[in-house]
Amino acid sequence: MTYCVALSVDEGLVFLSDTRTNAGVDHISTARKMSVFEQPGERVLVLLAAGNLSLTQAVLRELSEPSDPAEPTLWNVPTMPDAARVVGRAVRSVHQREAQALNDFSVEFNCSFILGGQIAQDVEAAGSRTPPPRARLFMIYAAGNFIEASSVNPYFQIGESKYGKPIIDRVLVPQTPLDEAAKCALISMDSTLRSNLSVGLPLDLLVYQKDTLRVTRFVTITQDNAYYQMIHRTWGERLRQVFGEIPDPDWQDAAAIPHADLEDDAVLFRAPASTAHGAVDARPAQTLAQADKPKARR
Amino acid sequence: MTYCVALSVDEGLVFLSDTRTNAGVDHISTARKMSVFEQPGERVLVLLAAGNLSLTQAVLRELSEPSDPAEPTLWNVPTMPDAARVVGRAVRSVHQREAQALNDFSVEFNCSFILGGQIAQDVEAAGSRTPPPRARLFMIYAAGNFIEASSVNPYFQIGESKYGKPIIDRVLVPQTPLDEAAKCALISMDSTLRSNLSVGLPLDLLVYQKDTLRVTRFVTITQDNAYYQMIHRTWGERLRQVFGEIPDPDWQDAAAIPHADLEDDAVLFRAPASTAHGAVDARPAQTLAQADKPKARR
Repeated sequence: MTYCVALSVDEGLVFLSDTRTNAGVDHISTARKMSVFEQPGERVLVLLAAGNLSLTQAVLRELSEPSDPAEPTLWNVPTMPDAARVVGRAVRSVHQREAQALNDFSVEFNCSFILGGQIAQDVEAAGSRTPPPRARLFMIYAAGNFIEASSVNPYFQIGESKYGKPIIDRVLVPQTPLDEAAKCALISMDSTLRSNLSVGLPLDLLVYQKDTLRVTRFVTITQDNAYYQMIHRTWGERLRQVFGEIPDPDWQDAAAIPHADLEDDAVLFRAPASTAHGAVDARPAQTLAQADKPKARR
Repeated sequence: MTYCVALSVDEGLVFLSDTRTNAGVDHISTARKMSVFEQPGERVLVLLAAGNLSLTQAVLRELSEPSDPAEPTLWNVPTMPDAARVVGRAVRSVHQREAQALNDFSVEFNCSFILGGQIAQDVEAAGSRTPPPRARLFMIYAAGNFIEASSVNPYFQIGESKYGKPIIDRVLVPQTPLDEAAKCALISMDSTLRSNLSVGLPLDLLVYQKDTLRVTRFVTITQDNAYYQMIHRTWGERLRQVFGEIPDPDWQDAAAIPHADLEDDAVLFRAPASTAHGAVDARPAQTLAQADKPKARR
């Protein structure tokens, strides 16, 4: 599998991808899943890919070496939605060529993409002082259709997305500063790495500051990266610390628990009379106290 | 979907399940997924179920109202592995009856179970002073086969397990006190609820203290439960606080980034000469500083 995530905040875009590919746990290798299409001062497009590597690479070839030079390409489309359409068209063209043959081997046509970036307006039409249209973020499905991120849904994930979702849901808003968004993406990745073997280092991180129209912040993060090591270590430590500070549940006697209700709800089953031996005194005896209590130090 | 989790620590077992069932987002209802088989002083067995509700209920009927009274039941098996075998046999019997008919409608035979608990030794054979064999925890698959938890893998999850896995991986060890393990399960559930609509309140929480051989701590947690509200609020707040305290990435000028390498690795693509206009100066200009810096306050 793979884990790729892209965040869209007011200050720009953050892209992060791992490099693990696998076809079974005994066939693990490394592939870059981030591709950057840059025409400095004019456009920056970043593409993240997840799914069957032969398919994502075929799509990438279609995009970087278009088979039909008359068709629009990522280099000449005038807007970001047009760029998403170009990717969608490439996916569909690969589908036409490959899907049936793969299907004969029961291999699913499985690929998805995140595309984000910014394209300057046509200078002649707009005058050179006009700021470029805003940076935008899209997710493109295997069917070639796509959706766009918005202020209520400011991020996309592809691949092994679930492990790293809770932290993003808790901290990311469009107002999050760009560097904090990068940190959020790295923590989300760290949680995924910790819980899933099919996602692995090195990571590619690209932070795009809006209106720069060039790649200014890019890093390939390996085991040796001090910042990532710090995040990995600190986040785990501090999480355990916070966990320890939250009060444990405080159970209190509650002879009045509606025990018959439990049997009605089919939660509690009792032995049939024939196998029962000894007196039955089986009320759930304690329930949660209904108030916070400061945690007693052990 | 569903989320159920069970933790096995030195002091006992923790079981937590949600109650959301759905067949599509427009068909959501509530069902208990925890079943308790208790013969006080003699055995406590807790069963958590995930998957197709018609199947898990069929298995539960098979277990609570055995069709063949000559077969061993959860009430009379002498050991926990025998109890797991009884559940496995019930799953297989339901599979025999249902799988083909479901398959005709392309419905997968999809169900899984967590079984945990403790059974006292035969009193006559062992003498009444002997402590009962240890509490044990099993996961039973749709094929009726099963695995047991161990000190290196002290927990099982079924259903929507990924969102809530990172926090368990970070804090749970066999030495974790029982109440802390319950807290860990609730935080894992809270992360899942936050990120996935198909998991919902109320929750059933059962904390089993080893060697008690009866249910002493059980609670159904609704919106109004003060302890759960506190966890929900505090964990999110403290997580955001810790997140804020971790230093942001510190980018520094790095004109020396091996830019050609990027192109070789097929990360960075350049416009073909025909579409390029203007001077190209496109080196990624900043990379991550290789040291921790205290976070500057904004």
